[in-house]
Amino acid sequence: MSEELVATKGERSRSRMLQVAYRLARQVGLQGLTIGELAADLGVSKSGLFAHFGSKENLQLAVLDFAADDFRRRVFEPALQRPRGVPRLMAVFNAWLAWASETKRGGCVFLSSALEYDDQEGPVRDALVQWFETLHQGLEKAWALAIEERHVFHRDPRQLALEMHSIVLMFHLEFRLLRSAQAQDRAHTSLALIFDRIGGENIDELICLGI
Amino acid sequence: MSEELVATKGERSRSRMLQVAYRLARQVGLQGLTIGELAADLGVSKSGLFAHFGSKENLQLAVLDFAADDFRRRVFEPALQRPRGVPRLMAVFNAWLAWASETKRGGCVFLSSALEYDDQEGPVRDALVQWFETLHQGLEKAWALAIEERHVFHRDPRQLALEMHSIVLMFHLEFRLLRSAQAQDRAHTSLALIFDRIGGENIDELICLGI
Repeated sequence: MSEELVATKGERSRSRMLQVAYRLARQVGLQGLTIGELAADLGVSKSGLFAHFGSKENLQLAVLDFAADDFRRRVFEPALQRPRGVPRLMAVFNAWLAWASETKRGGCVFLSSALEYDDQEGPVRDALVQWFETLHQGLEKAWALAIEERHVFHRDPRQLALEMHSIVLMFHLEFRLLRSAQAQDRAHTSLALIFDRIGGENIDELICLGI
Repeated sequence: MSEELVATKGERSRSRMLQVAYRLARQVGLQGLTIGELAADLGVSKSGLFAHFGSKENLQLAVLDFAADDFRRRVFEPALQRPRGVPRLMAVFNAWLAWASETKRGGCVFLSSALEYDDQEGPVRDALVQWFETLHQGLEKAWALAIEERHVFHRDPRQLALEMHSIVLMFHLEFRLLRSAQAQDRAHTSLALIFDRIGGENIDELICLGI
């Protein structure tokens, strides 16, 4: 067997382990994720899994990386195909709501981990801070382009990024805990109110381009 | 010893147990709270504590009740002393931010529990849903009074309640996980932007009355 094929098989196996670990983490939290439980779910030995990841912390970090890839691939990358400015922002927003609501069981691993790790020091907390910072930078850039394109008129794209993020936080709570049938509509209303405030003349048309 | 004194002593002891349990829950989450750990922290026997609460679930429910009292006493009740409308809303908002940021260790037990229990059925989840619903009703009422007083002009106080809540959710993330020095300013800016949008002529004066 060539080295390339071996590597590919190893990657496939790692990807399968992480897929299962990610699903588990969405249910029990990153802290609740144990190598023992993961081994049982995968039907492999605990020692084999431990040999692969080295420590629970490394497993947690690998799950966060895996989740970050998932988010980037499903929320940010498709939006890059849309025209810059408001259409792209709408695409990010809609894909984000879909991402937060799609799984029948288990919420956003970043959000639940943020609450678990906000008072703890260490590499997992650092990775979470880094992820949220990257998220905010991505959103800020998308809003900055909307300002540059003169779709919206505002001086502080970071503020707009954080406001969009707060809407999604509220959506997560309303949709998952409160199971509100209005969660999606409320989120869209909140975003529309931002556009009402700062949008240019053709804002409705631009919003439709992103849906 | 009279019955009254016995009851008082029992209440004091229960209150002390809940105080410690509440502190623990803010650190390890409601799910991570165990009767064993609480007994060790209190220096009492596990069986004595179990006899008092009956089950881990009853302990969790008692902690949520205790936290709800704490929130009501520190966020809502002082605000009732302020003039209805925007001054009262500002008092709620400021006390809420203070509540979310004051403890050096451990965040909001409702928020962390919301993420832990959003996919689980049972009395703890039901109690959380009830708490958030009561919170939203309280906020909605405060906004409805601001509309009635013609401090702000809007048709949907529930939407405004949820927008205020989203600002606090974002604040919690920014302040606790990201440790952003701008968290407080960002939250105030977001609220000011709502007032810019819907506030009447003397809105700045009314805002100052609540600070």
